Amino acid sequence: MTQHLSIFLIQLIVIVIASRIFGYLFKLMKQPTVMGEIVAGIVLGPSMLGSMFPEYLNFVFPPNSLGNMRILSQIGLILFMFVIGMELDLSIIKQKARTAITISNASIIFPFLLGIGLAYFLYEDYGLPHTPYYAFALFMGIAMSITAFPVLARITKERGLSGNRLGSIALASAAINDVTGWCLLAFVVAIVQAGSISSSFLVLLETVGYMLAMVFIVRPVLKKMVNQQQNQIIKQSTTAIILITLLISALATELIGIHALFGAFMAGLVMPAEWSIRKVIIDKIEDVALILLLPLFFVITGLRTQIEALNTPMLWGICLLITIVAIIGKLGGGALAAKFTGESNYNSLVIGILMNTRGLMELIILNIGYELKILSNEVFTMMVIMALVTTFMTGPLLDLAERIYSKKAVPAGFSTDNSI
Amino acid sequence: MTQHLSIFLIQLIVIVIASRIFGYLFKLMKQPTVMGEIVAGIVLGPSMLGSMFPEYLNFVFPPNSLGNMRILSQIGLILFMFVIGMELDLSIIKQKARTAITISNASIIFPFLLGIGLAYFLYEDYGLPHTPYYAFALFMGIAMSITAFPVLARITKERGLSGNRLGSIALASAAINDVTGWCLLAFVVAIVQAGSISSSFLVLLETVGYMLAMVFIVRPVLKKMVNQQQNQIIKQSTTAIILITLLISALATELIGIHALFGAFMAGLVMPAEWSIRKVIIDKIEDVALILLLPLFFVITGLRTQIEALNTPMLWGICLLITIVAIIGKLGGGALAAKFTGESNYNSLVIGILMNTRGLMELIILNIGYELKILSNEVFTMMVIMALVTTFMTGPLLDLAERIYSKKAVPAGFSTDNSI
Repeated sequence: MTQHLSIFLIQLIVIVIASRIFGYLFKLMKQPTVMGEIVAGIVLGPSMLGSMFPEYLNFVFPPNSLGNMRILSQIGLILFMFVIGMELDLSIIKQKARTAITISNASIIFPFLLGIGLAYFLYEDYGLPHTPYYAFALFMGIAMSITAFPVLARITKERGLSGNRLGSIALASAAINDVTGWCLLAFVVAIVQAGSISSSFLVLLETVGYMLAMVFIVRPVLKKMVNQQQNQIIKQSTTAIILITLLISALATELIGIHALFGAFMAGLVMPAEWSIRKVIIDKIEDVALILLLPLFFVITGLRTQIEALNTPMLWGICLLITIVAIIGKLGGGALAAKFTGESNYNSLVIGILMNTRGLMELIILNIGYELKILSNEVFTMMVIMALVTTFMTGPLLDLAERIYSKKAVPAGFSTDNSI
Repeated sequence: MTQHLSIFLIQLIVIVIASRIFGYLFKLMKQPTVMGEIVAGIVLGPSMLGSMFPEYLNFVFPPNSLGNMRILSQIGLILFMFVIGMELDLSIIKQKARTAITISNASIIFPFLLGIGLAYFLYEDYGLPHTPYYAFALFMGIAMSITAFPVLARITKERGLSGNRLGSIALASAAINDVTGWCLLAFVVAIVQAGSISSSFLVLLETVGYMLAMVFIVRPVLKKMVNQQQNQIIKQSTTAIILITLLISALATELIGIHALFGAFMAGLVMPAEWSIRKVIIDKIEDVALILLLPLFFVITGLRTQIEALNTPMLWGICLLITIVAIIGKLGGGALAAKFTGESNYNSLVIGILMNTRGLMELIILNIGYELKILSNEVFTMMVIMALVTTFMTGPLLDLAERIYSKKAVPAGFSTDNSI
């Protein structure tokens, strides 16, 4: 017990320090700090430090200590998805509804179909034996069509786009993309967990029942409770009720079989919409969750990412193929849809580039796929590389688009701390 | 993995709901809510629900799930002790230094000696075979002399004492008591861990080195860092540095062998003294730690408290004896010392009653003793009962003292939420 605590404290210290250092370095490189934190996780794993110092992994991350880390990182992700749900201001969607829905749908359907097509070629050699093709294909479809709303929100803000038309369309599209994507994911996980499409009917029914309950029972009750608060100060008992709601929602979706993170996200969405209330809750949760717990998730991801397993030109070729298909699907799909709704060439390109940002969201989904034994180690690693590459390229591509279309220079770089 | 997460979510939900309900009930009974939360832990354990529904413990708290709970509850306690350290405003001590130091020392030495004497009688029948007498005796001495500063602070505030002379003496005495008590505990744990008093020299040396480093290196560096902040808003990177300091301090004391909680407490003490800074940090940590993680500790305590093991009149007799000795030591010692410094009879009595409040602090220390295998199951259970009884009696005894000395009635009860 005492020894467990020491090891866990060492892990936390190593992880938090590494993620802060890499986050800082990436900020200097004008990349979102969260990308640095993700890379820190990979550096701490078998791909880098683990292969250089084999003893180190056994000392800092002994296999029997990973259970604690996993549970804690799940709690961190539950808090994080809850915050994401709360930060998703659905009112921005109303303003640009038609355009945003078109772009969002196109940038889901197009990469989704490409993902299914890609899965057809990958399944024979890299699918896991007990995972049926439809599960692998549906999952690859989803994994290809994710946009990271939080990173996108941060980038548009940093580039001075968030006030204008272009920024609001991109943000609204990403918001719809997030909600649709996570709902689709829930259904895909439901189908995979149920074992076959036909037997998933009950799970789908439960999912619909759960969502109706959240929107038509939980949401109004919470709204009423918050309205009774006399001022902006949230009592500890209110915080407790909100946390209990979050936990029950996460448990409900976990028991239904559509993953606890979907429940956490939904709980965030149905919180009372007054921004001041949400802000207080976010303040209470964000720092501890983001500084202490989320880096644990990056390290779990890093421990699963085995770049050294991609040891043939063939595997790297497939990794490149996945990345190209991902970019064509999201960037191409988003840009074409924007053009179709009547946007200028420049605007369409920028929207495509922004929708191609996968960030942390993609990693969360990939880990779900890994834990459900849908993704093999190799495919998981390739998809992680794809997620990193497509997120890294957003900044440089936006610079390039501005230069091509001779738009005025904007303050580049990401100066704030917590860009996810 | 997925199953682990479900069970852990169920545990969290059960624990948080139970502790809120009992906390509320105890508030109605004019007791601190934290006492309700502690009782909730016992009710959820084998003493109550476990003995009524044997299957329930295996379902909600299966043995293989307790590792996660323990680590998380330790993290909760580390955050809690850090907050306690920060909330301990050492400047109040300066005002009433002489009186407070006398009272504090007397209310440590007197119960400490009584505890050692009691241990002499208990050791033969209830000591653990591999634990030497001096370890058991020193530990019982410490366990008898703890005062719960947080509960005491809450009670003096609720009773309108915090502004006046009486309240500040009691608070200052409790603050000194806390610091002295935890330092003594660190030394006792060091001696116990080292195996013998002579071989503990190195540990003591390391402990002194650690404390010097905290006060003369960490404290000024943190002060300088915080002074560089332009305004009251604390950046996420500052929060990160503070959390890393906390983790390293906890790890250092754990590795030295004087328990991580002492390091967490010291980290809180050396934080920059500006209350506004501490307040912001406390706000960020307190709610999640107190609502989600601390109740886990109460349940761990509850699972270890086996009231059904006290199944003979003899055992209950000893339990009563422990409680009486504890009251004589703390209440009597505190009151006599206050009288000795020239306080009135009423003031001395009130100070004694307040110093007798053991609260959560006692439970933390008892759990350390249990984990170090110093306390047997029976003695642990008896001491938990003693801690509960002495904390429960504070409110009624204060009422009684007021009636005896015909002081004017004060607003009774504990109306705030988070009295620990």
